[in-house]
Amino acid sequence: MTSRLKTPVNTLKLKRLGIDTQKEHVAYLRADSHVAMSEGFEALTRVRINYKSRSIVASLHIVHSDSLLNKGELGLSEMAFNSLSAKAGEYISLTHLEPIQSLSFVRSKIYGNRVNAQGMNEIIKDIVKGNYSNIHLSSFITAFAGENMNTDEIIFLTKSMIASGANIKWQGKLVVDKHCIGGLPGNRTTPIIVSIISSLGLIMPKTSSRAITSPAGTADTMEVMAPVTLSQKKIESVINKEGGCVVWGNTANLSPADDILIRIERALDLDSEGQLIASVLSKKVAAGSTHVIIDMPVGDTVKLRSIEAANHLKILMEKVAHAIGLKLKVVVTDGSQPVGIGIGPSLEAMDILAVLRNEPDAPSDLRDKSLLLAGELLELAGYAENGKGNEIATKVLQSGKAYKKFLAICKAQGGFTEPHFAKYKREIKANKNGTVAVINNRKLSRVAKLAGAPDHTSAGLRFFAHVGNKIKKGEILYTIYSETEGEMDYTMQYLASEKDIITIK
Amino acid sequence: MTSRLKTPVNTLKLKRLGIDTQKEHVAYLRADSHVAMSEGFEALTRVRINYKSRSIVASLHIVHSDSLLNKGELGLSEMAFNSLSAKAGEYISLTHLEPIQSLSFVRSKIYGNRVNAQGMNEIIKDIVKGNYSNIHLSSFITAFAGENMNTDEIIFLTKSMIASGANIKWQGKLVVDKHCIGGLPGNRTTPIIVSIISSLGLIMPKTSSRAITSPAGTADTMEVMAPVTLSQKKIESVINKEGGCVVWGNTANLSPADDILIRIERALDLDSEGQLIASVLSKKVAAGSTHVIIDMPVGDTVKLRSIEAANHLKILMEKVAHAIGLKLKVVVTDGSQPVGIGIGPSLEAMDILAVLRNEPDAPSDLRDKSLLLAGELLELAGYAENGKGNEIATKVLQSGKAYKKFLAICKAQGGFTEPHFAKYKREIKANKNGTVAVINNRKLSRVAKLAGAPDHTSAGLRFFAHVGNKIKKGEILYTIYSETEGEMDYTMQYLASEKDIITIK
Repeated sequence: MTSRLKTPVNTLKLKRLGIDTQKEHVAYLRADSHVAMSEGFEALTRVRINYKSRSIVASLHIVHSDSLLNKGELGLSEMAFNSLSAKAGEYISLTHLEPIQSLSFVRSKIYGNRVNAQGMNEIIKDIVKGNYSNIHLSSFITAFAGENMNTDEIIFLTKSMIASGANIKWQGKLVVDKHCIGGLPGNRTTPIIVSIISSLGLIMPKTSSRAITSPAGTADTMEVMAPVTLSQKKIESVINKEGGCVVWGNTANLSPADDILIRIERALDLDSEGQLIASVLSKKVAAGSTHVIIDMPVGDTVKLRSIEAANHLKILMEKVAHAIGLKLKVVVTDGSQPVGIGIGPSLEAMDILAVLRNEPDAPSDLRDKSLLLAGELLELAGYAENGKGNEIATKVLQSGKAYKKFLAICKAQGGFTEPHFAKYKREIKANKNGTVAVINNRKLSRVAKLAGAPDHTSAGLRFFAHVGNKIKKGEILYTIYSETEGEMDYTMQYLASEKDIITIK
Repeated sequence: MTSRLKTPVNTLKLKRLGIDTQKEHVAYLRADSHVAMSEGFEALTRVRINYKSRSIVASLHIVHSDSLLNKGELGLSEMAFNSLSAKAGEYISLTHLEPIQSLSFVRSKIYGNRVNAQGMNEIIKDIVKGNYSNIHLSSFITAFAGENMNTDEIIFLTKSMIASGANIKWQGKLVVDKHCIGGLPGNRTTPIIVSIISSLGLIMPKTSSRAITSPAGTADTMEVMAPVTLSQKKIESVINKEGGCVVWGNTANLSPADDILIRIERALDLDSEGQLIASVLSKKVAAGSTHVIIDMPVGDTVKLRSIEAANHLKILMEKVAHAIGLKLKVVVTDGSQPVGIGIGPSLEAMDILAVLRNEPDAPSDLRDKSLLLAGELLELAGYAENGKGNEIATKVLQSGKAYKKFLAICKAQGGFTEPHFAKYKREIKANKNGTVAVINNRKLSRVAKLAGAPDHTSAGLRFFAHVGNKIKKGEILYTIYSETEGEMDYTMQYLASEKDIITIK
């Protein structure tokens, strides 16, 4: 009877209900269980769940039915099972949650005060431990969004995020990287740049993301040609051997706070400069990079819509990079239309290979942009004199050394595979003469996704009608590829109802 | 096959899982169901659920087990079932959620802009419809917290909240009310004030709350003496008959946005002046009040800890009240220690009755405070000249008219019951001579709760050792009451470990 007054220990048996609530820990408890009644636990009460030497914080959902749980059982969401490393049938104890001290720093910020380095550190530590509910995370993101952070606070946030997870160290003091802010269809410069840079002896351990809403992410595209899901140990062996890699970035525990925050930022659809900078730079530094080029495309359908917005972000990003000891250069580029011909993993992979193989019909925009960024990176890293980077990069590409390096990287990652076209193909032709005036990138992406990209890797489209091109009636605007007849049907039905994907005037 | 491209209609059969997630709508869908796969629905995707002519928005939780749901079934949280007025076994359709337009006003606020009347209206409308997830609600509350709202925005918020639900109209143009900001143990002036005021012919339809973390709310205390859970129709008949009532406020749909927001504010532990003002005033106006007295206790263990803070809130509150056409007066009072002798529903009810019955040992602090507030209310309502309110209120109380009115109100609400003492009683005595220096109100409340209050209505304590009292060794400091032996044991064990509930020096 004394247990209620001291630290209450309430033992319950774990049951797997198989409910996925993403990163949020949810625990399911019977309303008529002894624990719920004696402790006064209600729906959404935050509790601590203890198992062996580990513990997590979870939000309670209260069950009023006897078909899901017995009174002595506790259900956990899938993520909570993972975080505890517990199995169904094992016993846990449930305790009241102690107050989360770092929330006082968030409140202080809301009341108009600045947060200091220690405050930010405690906030981020608690977030990584899972001590913040989605409600707390949303409040944190909102309080520090927009223009609400000054440069110091962005620096504190970046440093705290770096400290929140693993930090990779590479042999050799110079490790380069590139990053693109805001997606642009077909913008697959990464494998080309990595090949050029690492064939010159520099270290470039590139981690890339998969598609979230686009027809292909760089990791999806690379995966058509070589395995990208590698252990940290395997990544290190690839780098030690070849100096470069292009792998999927979700395997390493780099800046784990970022993975938690980004879900909530998406739900809120909030673009915050400070949080963007901390997100990008923390991942780079945690991955061991010392010199980074940022590709910042500007255009009507990408994240940055004006040169002014880009320059504002550029200056702030360079300040923060300087403060955390990262050499960084932002290159503002044209984001008005897709880069390359292919959209979809395999079709983009073909563009990359055409450039690396110096094929005469390789997309020149993709080649030129890759060389520009590679050149800038060589200059930033001190490998090339100012103004000489592009020339050196071009030579490496033309000599075939970059292609050779790319094949070697693919081999080290698990073996090279040649991309292929999908079974079904349909050509979309111009119905009049004229000049391409406007391309709706968003709708073009939707066409590629309806055709099956990125899950069906060879689905997507090849696109020939760039803005300004003179087009004759009957000429091919783009070709759609799909792996199944059903998806091609879906796509054609969509096209029948959409008239303004490409406007010819 | 075309359904995917136009408005997708996905029919699923409802299953009741009995999961309580409070106000948030959650829907449970099998990961391997046709709907989840063809629509790309993931955990936390926001979806629209359509049933007959109604629809709600819900967050998806994805189920990876076949024991909870069949592939053609959709589970709903209890609140979602209620909001849809649907039953298990019925069919609903699931569709993608259209963008919630009003979120752009929240984002604009985060970016530093002011929101206008129309923007605030649309936000509050969407919140009441359930279109905001907890993540969105938290962002809204954070963006408008602290000093972030100017007076105009507080006025817009208050008006929008009034418009968001029912608005009660009373016959007679003058309807009075009182409200206390920030809890103080035993501060049960309400039934006394209502009795005085309504016996003078004014209309005072008082709705009160139950305890959340305290040993008793006014509704809990009143319920010891008369029923408080009344339908709107029944409340109206009580008012038409007696002019006053003291009922539980959760039955009417007044300012429903407030009920949604307050849960999130509690989870964030955020005190925001603007949101507090909008919350209090919107409920009052929606309830039909025209003249309101605000009791604002100031002390170390209540919400308002300084006279400066109280005056700041007072001025802002009076400005907003003026703008929405409400006559309002704030009375700053002493909040340094409990009011009355009893703590716990029945024991507080005894204090109220002792005052109403003019018993010689009735707690004078409770009587004086009730008369002060009743007097102010009479003056505000124009019933008494300035400076004469207290005198009139005192006369009504001393004459026995107020007690008679109280009994009549109880009868109209369903019948009067005399409160009684609990079965078990234990006296706590002073262990030395001295003067009461400090009372820990928080720990004193905990004692009353461990003894069983408010669920066991006659549990709690009677408290005799006010600050400044001279105490002799062996004199009774307070008496504990409980309905079960077990709870008395709990309480005594707690007392054995806590030495500083009352400090005698």
